[in-house]
Order: sequence, then C-alpha cells, then structure tokens
Amino acid sequence: TDTSSQSPATVRLAVIPGDGIGQEVTPEALKVLEAVSVPVKFEQTHYELGAERYLATGEVLPDSVLAEIREHDAILLGAVGGKPNDPHLPPGILERGLLLRLRFELDHYVNLRPSRLFPGSVSPLAEPGEVDFVVVREGTEGPYTGNGGALRVGTPAEVATEVSVNTAFGVERVVRDAFARASKRPRKKLTLVHKTNVLVHAGSVWWRLFEAVGREFPDVETDYMHIDAAMIHMTVNPARFDVIVTDNLFGDIITDLAAAITGGIGLAASGNVNPDRTTPSMFEPVHGSAPDIAGQQKADPTAAILSTALLLEHLGYDGAAAAVEGAVLADLTERQGAGERLTSEVGDAIAARLS
Amino acid sequence: TDTSSQSPATVRLAVIPGDGIGQEVTPEALKVLEAVSVPVKFEQTHYELGAERYLATGEVLPDSVLAEIREHDAILLGAVGGKPNDPHLPPGILERGLLLRLRFELDHYVNLRPSRLFPGSVSPLAEPGEVDFVVVREGTEGPYTGNGGALRVGTPAEVATEVSVNTAFGVERVVRDAFARASKRPRKKLTLVHKTNVLVHAGSVWWRLFEAVGREFPDVETDYMHIDAAMIHMTVNPARFDVIVTDNLFGDIITDLAAAITGGIGLAASGNVNPDRTTPSMFEPVHGSAPDIAGQQKADPTAAILSTALLLEHLGYDGAAAAVEGAVLADLTERQGAGERLTSEVGDAIAARLS
Ligand SMILES: CC(C)[C@H](C(=O)O)[C@@H](O)C(=O)O
Ligand SMILES: CC(C)[C@H](C(=O)O)[C@@H](O)C(=O)O
Repeated sequence: TDTSSQSPATVRLAVIPGDGIGQEVTPEALKVLEAVSVPVKFEQTHYELGAERYLATGEVLPDSVLAEIREHDAILLGAVGGKPNDPHLPPGILERGLLLRLRFELDHYVNLRPSRLFPGSVSPLAEPGEVDFVVVREGTEGPYTGNGGALRVGTPAEVATEVSVNTAFGVERVVRDAFARASKRPRKKLTLVHKTNVLVHAGSVWWRLFEAVGREFPDVETDYMHIDAAMIHMTVNPARFDVIVTDNLFGDIITDLAAAITGGIGLAASGNVNPDRTTPSMFEPVHGSAPDIAGQQKADPTAAILSTALLLEHLGYDGAAAAVEGAVLADLTERQGAGERLTSEVGDAIAARLS
Repeated sequence: TDTSSQSPATVRLAVIPGDGIGQEVTPEALKVLEAVSVPVKFEQTHYELGAERYLATGEVLPDSVLAEIREHDAILLGAVGGKPNDPHLPPGILERGLLLRLRFELDHYVNLRPSRLFPGSVSPLAEPGEVDFVVVREGTEGPYTGNGGALRVGTPAEVATEVSVNTAFGVERVVRDAFARASKRPRKKLTLVHKTNVLVHAGSVWWRLFEAVGREFPDVETDYMHIDAAMIHMTVNPARFDVIVTDNLFGDIITDLAAAITGGIGLAASGNVNPDRTTPSMFEPVHGSAPDIAGQQKADPTAAILSTALLLEHLGYDGAAAAVEGAVLADLTERQGAGERLTSEVGDAIAARLS
C-alpha cells in the first residue's frame, strides 16, 4: 500500500551549530523550522564541529563525518571560527578545513546572498522598499582554492603566493545560474562585478562567458562594474542592483558591504547551493561566530532564521519560505522602538507568528 | 658664485593628464600649483599618454618616455582608461601598461590614500570632523603583479590563473612605513586589513611581519580585520580608523569605499610614493577617467587639487600643502548650497584663495 499520502516525507537535515553565536542562533532557526507549516518532517542529525572540537581532539572534519553529512538532504550551519589569534588555532584551519571544505566537497558553486532593505533598517543611504537584490557568488574556485604556497618562510627572502583559479567549467555554470535567476525576476538585470582591468587572465574568462551565456538570455539586461566602482554604487545607490554575479573573493567582500548598508549583518542570510542537487546544499547566516558577544544571548538570530527560508525554498516549499519571511518582516516592523531582546526571545517571537 | 639663494630651486614635474576627465582636472591642479606660494619653480613636461595615444599609435608607454619621466622630481597624473568595452582597447592594456607600469617601474610601494570627512559631505553614515584616516596600500605586489596566465583559452577546458605574489621584502617595507606614519599621528593606531583565514600563505607573511615590525613601535596600538569585516566597520563607524595598512587589491577596494562614505570619489586624492626617494613619486586622484561625463566640464577637480597637496607635502613644502588643503576646505564649506560649477570654475575658485 502507498502510505506516502499518510505519513509526511522526511527531510534529513544535518545541523552544524559551530562556534560562538552559531550555537545560539541555530536553535532559534530550528525553532522556526519546527513551527512553520510544511508537509514534511525534519529529521535532524546534529554535528559538533568547529573550534571546540578541534581544540579538544585535533579533528576538524573527519572523512567519516563528511560522508555521513553527504547522506542528508540539506545542511543548516550556524557559524564557524574560534577566538581571533588563539595560539592553538592556526589561522584559517576551521574556515579552510570545515566551512570551505564543505562548500568545495559538496560542490556548492552558487553562493546565494539576497539583500533587501527590511523595515526598521537604520541604513541612511538606501531607500527602503526599493532595495532588493541578490548576489550570486561563485563558491568553488577563485582565490579560495588554497592553491599557492610559500618559500623560505620566516626569512627575509620569503615569497608567498595565492593562486586564483578560474575555469570555463566553473565560471560558465555560475554565470548561467545567475542569468536564469535574473530572467525570472521582474527587473531582469544582471551585473557582473570583477576587476578585468587588472586581473586580466581571470577577467577575460569571466567576461567572455558572461557575454556568451548572455546571448542565451536576450531578455536579461546586463552591465559590468569593477569591484572598486561597485563599492561606490553599492553605497550610493544600492537600489540599482537586481542580480550580481561575481567571483568568490569579490562576493565575500561585496556581500558584507551589502549587509552593512541594507539592515546589518544580523539580517544577512545565505545559501551554499548545488543547483544540480547531487549533494545537500547548506544554509547559513553570513555573519561569523562573533566570539566577543558569544554566550550572552545578544546575537540576532534573524539571519539564521532567514537562512531557513532559503532552505525551504530550495527544497521546493515556497509557501513555507514565504511564511518565514513574512514572520520575520512582521517581527522587524514591530521591533522598531521595542527594547532589546535576547536571542531566544527573537526566535520565540518569530516562531509564535507561525504557529 | 652661489646663486641658489637668488633664483628659486626647480622641481621637474612630469604631467600626464591621461584620458577622459583626467584632461579636465589636471589643468585645475596645475592652476593651483601655480597659485600656491612655494619657494620653488615647477618646470613642467607634459606627456600625452593614454587611450588616445594608444588608439592612434599603438603605443602605451615607450621605454624612452619612461626613461625621460624617471628624470623628473615628481609626477602629476590625471586618470587613465578608455571607454568601457571599446573593442580596440584590450581590457587592462592602459591600466597595466601605463598606470601600473609606472607604479611598478618606479617602485611606488606606498600607495597613500587619506580620507577625511570634509565639510559639506553628504555622507549620512559618518560623523563629520571625527573621520580622519589614511590607507597605506601596498603598491608593487599582491594580485597586481600580472603573474598568472591562461590555458586552452576559449575552449570549455579553459583555466585562467592570477597569482598574488607577496614577499617579505615587499610586505615589511610597506608595513614599516605604515607604522612610522601611525606613530607620528595623534591617535597612533594601525589596523591591518587582510583575509588571513582564507588566503593563508599571503596572510601568514603579512601577519608575521605586522607583528614583528610592530615590536619596533611599541607606542602604536594595533588591530586586525578581515577585508569583509572591514566593509562593515568602514560603513558603520569609519571614525574608528586611524592608519590602515593592506595589500594592493584590498587597498584598491577599501579606498573606493572610504571615498564613497567620506565625501565622494571627487574628493579622494592619492600618492604613489617611493619613500626611499630614488625615483619620482606620482600623485593622482583616486577616481578614473569617467568617459561618461568627459569633455563636459562636469568633473570635480578637487581630488586632483588635493593630490597636489600630497605632492607638495612629499617635496617637503608642508606650509604650501596646508595652504592648498585650507583653500579646498574653504571652498567646500562655501560650496554647500552653491549652484553647480564647471570644472574650471572650481579650480579658479580654489586658486583664487591662494593668490
Ligand atoms: C569564514 C569565511 C571563510 C567565509 C568566507 O570568506 O567565505 C565568510 O566570510 C563568509 O562570507 O561566508
Ligand atoms: C585603474 C586601476 C588599475 C587602478 C587600480 O586598480 O589600482 C585604480 O582603480 C586605482 O585605485 O588607482
């Protein structure tokens, strides 16, 4: 007998709270996932990964754990990163070994970062309501590959290199994804951000594939901006952007600026997406582990909660995603003038609007 | 007989107006240099370099011209760059072949970019008067070396690389210059901006030399910020910065953001300095050639004029530099509420305050 209509389908969700405020915002995101009405059961597996585990055991992301995570349908991540300059934490070990390893091994080539000017935003530069863009950041190449090295370390003759790797394979697929997203939006506008006048080798392949793929999307209006000029446009007139496609490092930089001017890093959600759906995609707030405010219930869980909306959308539950966004919007509207709330109180308030 | 006390010393100044609005703002900068009282005569040599010359002759920067420029005491540059996507201008040919070639050949390892919140600034994010910082951008290495290349260009198997080169030699000298500048300023604060958690090879040499050189400057307070986090701090609280030291690409990005939030790119001046004084240093506005508004006398020459203040300071004429800054300040104060002025009118107004 077919029981699929009786018992809801199951989504296997790997949960990695991570470090610092990651451990505080993740429970609030899960609270909201439990509260939202969705014809599916989330079966959670929690993984303790991050600075604490590394400092205790020396393990960052054991292969066996990665293999287990791979068997899930999606991943929810809090934040990763220890105290700055902890002598027991080599710089980048968690970022490279855990966060970036997940993005690379699971081939999350579309790093999706929407920005909207939410009500209650204190950004004095942007015009509320008009700002609504999404950055499609390449997630698996560029200066993030770890290629490069160092010679004669610690001597006056030291040379250290970082190699940005850009392949036609990698650039074309993310550019095509960005065009497809742009063509489905009302304004149908796509901006390429790079630094083609200096990074001529990488810039050339980005530029040529942007032009070539663009010919498949004649309805999408395109433009190009150097990363430095993008700083100015993003600050002075963020409303001009619709979809932005850019490389891994430029995307890292521009999305933090976007967050800063459109409501703050506490509201910036992201998805590390494999559009081919051959691996679980991963959803996380853009903010870091913020060790300086960790453990005090001071962190804003809204970015983590909005990341669950991206997760729901990715799984095809658009109604539930919209419900979460609606609850966040309502909360943000009410938040104006309200006193400071604890991390869990914000989560409670948003979850309450959904039940 | 010694006539040095009778006839003023001569400063040999190479002038490169360049392209677009560079040709309009440079005459205004020269107007101000002529007007300011300084015990020296500027002997100008003008060089026609840039898009026009390249399109007409195929020449970017002939070796003989470079050799001539080298014999000068300083260089004043307007802006370089042709129309975006001009099919006759390969991307980067002017930037790499002219602007960056000058910076590299003349070993301009300190790219100095001060930011102040000038009166009349419309930046709603910063608190006027409190914002006064300088970015010391490395100018001769990092991702700007042009190292890298491409394989199987134009095929689906294309791979393009960009190699960021970071040497102990190059990093240490710019870091030491930044510490020396910070130690001479009232607040004595130096912030290193990098991305040590991802660019671990380059980040490591920057970090170690920042720490090592810092021990020679115990009076300078230091901190560190990832480039993405710097976007947020720069936007939300630019007053927290005093001196920033960073690599070539991060410096390019952060100084345009700094300009955008502290009064606009029309006010951002810069010096490409060789502190060892073995070659002429070069002074230029941060803005580009802006082909979209070129030839209409619409460009603000203030950044070019403020670049002459940096030039005067570099040559040791601190009084004249302060006079130029004072005239600009007075003009900016009066500018509030004033109607739009032509490029030449702004230059006239500032020069008039000096005579
Ligand atoms: C933590 C760090 C490695 C990461 C990145 O640089 O991608 C973060 O800044 C982000 O944007 O997700
Ligand atoms: C024109 C370009 C090569 C240059 C740079 O990237 O350095 C410019 O943006 C600058 O900041 O002076």
